[in-house]
Amino acid sequence: MNKSITLGPLGECRMETPLKSRTYVRDDTRVLVDATTSPDGVHPKAETLELAGPRRCIHFDPTEVVAGIVTCGGLCPGLNDVIRALTMVLHDRYGVRRILGFRYGYEGLIQTYGHDPIALTPELVEDIHNDGGTILGSSRGRQDTNDIVDHLAAQGVRMLFTIGGDGTQRGSSEITAEVRRRGLDIAIVGIPKTIDNDVNYTERTFGFDTAVAMSRAPITGIHKEAQSVRNGVGLVKLMGRESGFVAAHASLASSDVNLVLVPEVPFTLERLFDYLEKRLTKKSHAVIVVAEGAGQAYVQSQGNDASGNVKFGDIGLFLKQAISNHFEALGTPAYMKYVDPSYIIRSAPATANDSVFCFQLGAHAVHAAMSGRTGIIIGLWNGHFVHVPVEKAVEQRKCINPDGLLWQAILDNTGQPANLS
Amino acid sequence: MNKSITLGPLGECRMETPLKSRTYVRDDTRVLVDATTSPDGVHPKAETLELAGPRRCIHFDPTEVVAGIVTCGGLCPGLNDVIRALTMVLHDRYGVRRILGFRYGYEGLIQTYGHDPIALTPELVEDIHNDGGTILGSSRGRQDTNDIVDHLAAQGVRMLFTIGGDGTQRGSSEITAEVRRRGLDIAIVGIPKTIDNDVNYTERTFGFDTAVAMSRAPITGIHKEAQSVRNGVGLVKLMGRESGFVAAHASLASSDVNLVLVPEVPFTLERLFDYLEKRLTKKSHAVIVVAEGAGQAYVQSQGNDASGNVKFGDIGLFLKQAISNHFEALGTPAYMKYVDPSYIIRSAPATANDSVFCFQLGAHAVHAAMSGRTGIIIGLWNGHFVHVPVEKAVEQRKCINPDGLLWQAILDNTGQPANLS
Amino acid sequence: MNKSITLGPLGECRMETPLKSRTYVRDDTRVLVDATTSPDGVHPKAETLELAGPRRCIHFDPTEVVAGIVTCGGLCPGLNDVIRALTMVLHDRYGVRRILGFRYGYEGLIQTYGHDPIALTPELVEDIHNDGGTILGSSRGRQDTNDIVDHLAAQGVRMLFTIGGDGTQRGSSEITAEVRRRGLDIAIVGIPKTIDNDVNYTERTFGFDTAVAMSRAPITGIHKEAQSVRNGVGLVKLMGRESGFVAAHASLASSDVNLVLVPEVPFTLERLFDYLEKRLTKKSHAVIVVAEGAGQAYVQSQGNDASGNVKFGDIGLFLKQAISNHFEALGTPAYMKYVDPSYIIRSAPATANDSVFCFQLGAHAVHAAMSGRTGIIIGLWNGHFVHVPVEKAVEQRKCINPDGLLWQAILDNTGQPANLS
Amino acid sequence: MNKSITLGPLGECRMETPLKSRTYVRDDTRVLVDATTSPDGVHPKAETLELAGPRRCIHFDPTEVVAGIVTCGGLCPGLNDVIRALTMVLHDRYGVRRILGFRYGYEGLIQTYGHDPIALTPELVEDIHNDGGTILGSSRGRQDTNDIVDHLAAQGVRMLFTIGGDGTQRGSSEITAEVRRRGLDIAIVGIPKTIDNDVNYTERTFGFDTAVAMSRAPITGIHKEAQSVRNGVGLVKLMGRESGFVAAHASLASSDVNLVLVPEVPFTLERLFDYLEKRLTKKSHAVIVVAEGAGQAYVQSQGNDASGNVKFGDIGLFLKQAISNHFEALGTPAYMKYVDPSYIIRSAPATANDSVFCFQLGAHAVHAAMSGRTGIIIGLWNGHFVHVPVEKAVEQRKCINPDGLLWQAILDNTGQPANLS
Repeated sequence: MNKSITLGPLGECRMETPLKSRTYVRDDTRVLVDATTSPDGVHPKAETLELAGPRRCIHFDPTEVVAGIVTCGGLCPGLNDVIRALTMVLHDRYGVRRILGFRYGYEGLIQTYGHDPIALTPELVEDIHNDGGTILGSSRGRQDTNDIVDHLAAQGVRMLFTIGGDGTQRGSSEITAEVRRRGLDIAIVGIPKTIDNDVNYTERTFGFDTAVAMSRAPITGIHKEAQSVRNGVGLVKLMGRESGFVAAHASLASSDVNLVLVPEVPFTLERLFDYLEKRLTKKSHAVIVVAEGAGQAYVQSQGNDASGNVKFGDIGLFLKQAISNHFEALGTPAYMKYVDPSYIIRSAPATANDSVFCFQLGAHAVHAAMSGRTGIIIGLWNGHFVHVPVEKAVEQRKCINPDGLLWQAILDNTGQPANLS
Repeated sequence: MNKSITLGPLGECRMETPLKSRTYVRDDTRVLVDATTSPDGVHPKAETLELAGPRRCIHFDPTEVVAGIVTCGGLCPGLNDVIRALTMVLHDRYGVRRILGFRYGYEGLIQTYGHDPIALTPELVEDIHNDGGTILGSSRGRQDTNDIVDHLAAQGVRMLFTIGGDGTQRGSSEITAEVRRRGLDIAIVGIPKTIDNDVNYTERTFGFDTAVAMSRAPITGIHKEAQSVRNGVGLVKLMGRESGFVAAHASLASSDVNLVLVPEVPFTLERLFDYLEKRLTKKSHAVIVVAEGAGQAYVQSQGNDASGNVKFGDIGLFLKQAISNHFEALGTPAYMKYVDPSYIIRSAPATANDSVFCFQLGAHAVHAAMSGRTGIIIGLWNGHFVHVPVEKAVEQRKCINPDGLLWQAILDNTGQPANLS
Repeated sequence: MNKSITLGPLGECRMETPLKSRTYVRDDTRVLVDATTSPDGVHPKAETLELAGPRRCIHFDPTEVVAGIVTCGGLCPGLNDVIRALTMVLHDRYGVRRILGFRYGYEGLIQTYGHDPIALTPELVEDIHNDGGTILGSSRGRQDTNDIVDHLAAQGVRMLFTIGGDGTQRGSSEITAEVRRRGLDIAIVGIPKTIDNDVNYTERTFGFDTAVAMSRAPITGIHKEAQSVRNGVGLVKLMGRESGFVAAHASLASSDVNLVLVPEVPFTLERLFDYLEKRLTKKSHAVIVVAEGAGQAYVQSQGNDASGNVKFGDIGLFLKQAISNHFEALGTPAYMKYVDPSYIIRSAPATANDSVFCFQLGAHAVHAAMSGRTGIIIGLWNGHFVHVPVEKAVEQRKCINPDGLLWQAILDNTGQPANLS
Repeated sequence: MNKSITLGPLGECRMETPLKSRTYVRDDTRVLVDATTSPDGVHPKAETLELAGPRRCIHFDPTEVVAGIVTCGGLCPGLNDVIRALTMVLHDRYGVRRILGFRYGYEGLIQTYGHDPIALTPELVEDIHNDGGTILGSSRGRQDTNDIVDHLAAQGVRMLFTIGGDGTQRGSSEITAEVRRRGLDIAIVGIPKTIDNDVNYTERTFGFDTAVAMSRAPITGIHKEAQSVRNGVGLVKLMGRESGFVAAHASLASSDVNLVLVPEVPFTLERLFDYLEKRLTKKSHAVIVVAEGAGQAYVQSQGNDASGNVKFGDIGLFLKQAISNHFEALGTPAYMKYVDPSYIIRSAPATANDSVFCFQLGAHAVHAAMSGRTGIIIGLWNGHFVHVPVEKAVEQRKCINPDGLLWQAILDNTGQPANLS
């Protein structure tokens, strides 16, 4: 059991928890990363993750601690749910009285921007989960790590919850390192935010369920549009920079899609046209779902955005034009109907399912921070909430396996050829 | 009462209706176009419209008549509701047994296309109103009037219901004329289909209520997006080629919009930027709703589409870029969030309200055709369904009056300046 | 033009309006109650209603006036929209600075209850239309008119907006009379609130559109339940104390209903069973929609509620049991599925359509009060907003005409016999 | 690894699969029931479940096999999704050409009922997932096992998919035993259907996600109702006969609930009143969610239903009356608002999330049957689809652990006392 992922505990246990919980988690309970077994059984050094949950002994004194919350990057359904859950559990369960909501992402952690933090209270956050967006505001991009740590220290913040994606968690990791270097007693706990559901060591990320749910109506609509004319081709662009989970799940859910294009499975225009021609001849209409990160070989990159992410070329507009041109040239014009509902999806309030998940994520993040964990994110793995070291989490992305059962389900559901390149 | 709009009855009353209705409409009951009065009372020659409804005496023998239905142009919520209502009332109330659903718009009325019509029955149409789109398919554009009348005659069609917009109804009018010229006994009754709600002599057109309802979520989403960053500008493009009713009503309904741009109210970029700068300085975010036909002076026309409509330049993409450039140049970049949800809206199933309206439209169209009316469309005016001569209906479009109470409500609701040009 | 409905103007025009409106309504423009004409034309003494809208000359000085708003009776979708609209138009358009939201219905107008009013501001009401319910709270029942007028006078209220049903408007009428008796300069303007849509001289009341929209899912669900078993009978109870408009429109919208029972059309159990037996034999399932006020002959009244309304016996539970017993006795048990979604419907946020309507109602109520109108409610008639004297409005209820086109549409749509008694 | 759950394979592998899958599952790969580890590691005899998925070698010849599908018991969202998935995967992936949809539950498997099965094809099932209910119909209750096996044999059915709850799966188990006794080569594979999510060895059951999602609006509505009056008490009854998962998750999702009552946590009326009194004094309103199986000590059982389930007394109506009486007696009447939305929830179409899950369940059920598995149900465990022996699955119910983290989250979220009895 040694090779398991290890945690970076901030410091020792200092006081008994004020929680009136009926159950506490032991520090030595861990969750297997791989729950399958072969005839040889489970390898004794199989990789494991620390189980999340309330500890009987905690590190910070809730009556004194100052907590901070920051939301970074693009919108994702559930942000307000997480802010609400953190605030409620900090306040109502641990008795923390000073909770600062930093404004506009990491900008809010830099003094010179002058964004005053919001004092978060149960009254203030009570109903925010009914709305999409984030009451704290957000921003993209990095800020100076030293300045951030200066500001945290100046404000007396002892635990910071960072709700954000890859870039945010890398920043989080650097803040943790600087905090350690200075010997400060500040815990940094991340809640991974990616609508793409592409974080390692967590089965799901919040907002993903909502994204899939919200993608259904656009697909159904485009299907109706495509069906209503001869040679109608509907095209929906969905989220998915490096992983096509939203496109895949939304397509499975609607069962109206004839072609799913994701970053993990390359395609050539020739093969795509070939398939489309056959489909139109046979059925007179077709529906395509494309993840934003698919087919990037065909579109010019637009540089980097403020978060340091590559700005993808617009594969949706490209395909719309390319398909249109192709069938025009063939003499059998296709009626293209295109929709890019991304902003409608990202800004939606969370589904019930995501709301429950967000509440649990928030609660576990608070338990982790109170117990002195730092440099971790909260994940869900094999049915348990776990602590994942942030470096481990950002090491590589979770992707669709083109040889796995999910992609096979897509092939079955759409009828598209396994090989498009 | 002479100057009133006159109807083109196809022919005389020939048999008693088989309807078991509790009420019949008299032919001499009319509806005032203007229901307001001044101290002088109502002018004796005030314009009126013929009241719609079942007649005691009808023109066609239901046991022999063949009815046809055709849907033309772009999708609009409620198409299937209307097809269903026509079929149900023809079949169940009058006992008509042969109802042909022509495929793919006016193409289906041209023999050489070879689109076989669908035999419509109550069983077939029972549940179609739960889906958006049209089960008949559609197409844009004109077809030869002579060929259409040849085909109608060959198929023995005695009443044709044309569900379509402006172009369709003009076509309808030409078919009516040709039918008259040939002395045929075929009634042509139109159900105006424009999601823009811009038909004269009808308070509403089907699909409009759904369009407004479906526009709410995109506006709310874009509002959340704009609010979530500093200098966030959200932009939603909605339907509205020559009339901005959808944009206006959707903005009133959401009350999150700061600027509504419609075709009826000109604007200059300078004034628009000016207002936006003030708004961003004060509130740090702004939401704009633009009707597709607004600001066409700024965008190059793209020629005509198959229906003969001018293909508008894309004012949405234009504004997105122009606003982005402007604030970039000012040194205070705006974060633009843009969505064009048109295809999601057009393909949606009808709201309950629209479903009820579609059922009534369909029923009145059948009553009109059975009684031998032709060359008319069904409208709703001053609370009554009426027969509107098709020439009258297409003469000019219903538009927002920039000096009227609706636009004033927009000014009040958004805070935008009355004059933007 | 003499026999027209006359208004009770509070007093003379005293100052020019501060409004920057592009249009003003003249006091002598009226709307015909009946917009149809016969060959004889319009009778010169035809009944008319005063046109609503902003006046150039107003009665109250906006900089000094104190306005009050009260919501009474049961919940209805759109209450918050109306509160929001009143506040926005009073504040932003007229510049009124003191707007009191009285708590818990007429209780809030009685000093001894000790409910402090809420100071309403644009910031406070900005987003309330996204929620159902009423931020002011409500209550049922009458309060002493003298005490109310004492309280209004003590608080310096010069215009009171009463949002409520029949009972509320009768109260409103008594307050108006007492105000007049005392020679006070206080305007009372009502916004009729009845989800049943049964107010005379207004084509619609707010909340009705939402009620119909929200009734669709329960009907569809019960339809699926009934279809899923042999001899399945689904029963949905909807709102409608004396008028069955909600039941009728919801049934038309869903087109899944086989029997609609409304207060206006009597039925006997014998005929109902008879029809049901035939239906089940033929189709093996049936869906019934019953308005709460239907068939009251069969259920014992439960006395009166606090509003003075008769507490109806529960026709839903009664029918569920009666039908169950009947088919049990026949030896062919029916599987009854019953749902009463009233509270889910009444508490829903308004549809887009209702939201627009509520904004307009609120605006016109403000214009009316500012111009010194009192003792009126705002209605919508023949496409125009109008002032309806409150006595006129509460004189009798708007009902479904069993011989009219709406009920005929129900007969056509459901296949139920015209005569069930 | 010996103590693991064992499967009942029907027979040997007989032919290579016609599937063109990129991946096949090995028969010796299993999934640990408990994925957590202690410092001692994983016990070598830890309980495991067989991994589901396509096998390279199958038992039945798809070109000859006849498959049957039956849906039993009450409605549950996703039934049509599962029927659709089974049909699609059988037909499109394995090439099975004869798929029988038995009507009205186990009745359809008894010849004397005379319900002809429906021939299921891709065309027929293509769009059924958009509707709630089951196109096959259902019924409650047991049928004679011998008669069922006779009928299966007579119809040549070689694999039967039973979609149903506890009672259905017990029946399934008896059919399996009788099939074995007779030495027939018929595979019986179950897909557990319980909206309550109370089946052992599966993390979720289909329909549960939809039930939670659909419970949100009623809770929000009742919350608004309760808030709108002084001493308002809202009560929502939800599904949950022996397990309160729907009530718990729906309450967490809405975060508007002040008291959750589930079968697993006993309560007394005294403690409940006590809590309610305090809550009303402090906040003037309260929202209660009660699972149908909670507090059964207070309500008289109503005998058994056709499925053999105890017919619960109506705890919802009981509490409504009891709370009403209590506060009436106290002299501070509570305004009770009660809703039981069960039929609206059960008959709803599946959420996107449930649709994806149903597709996967159906696919794995087909893979299992084709490979000759019998006497199993399909479960999801630790992120993998698994085969669970039906006896194991029905042995005991999955329940909320009152000492676990889920119930603790409820206590935190609602503020209700841990001990109510």
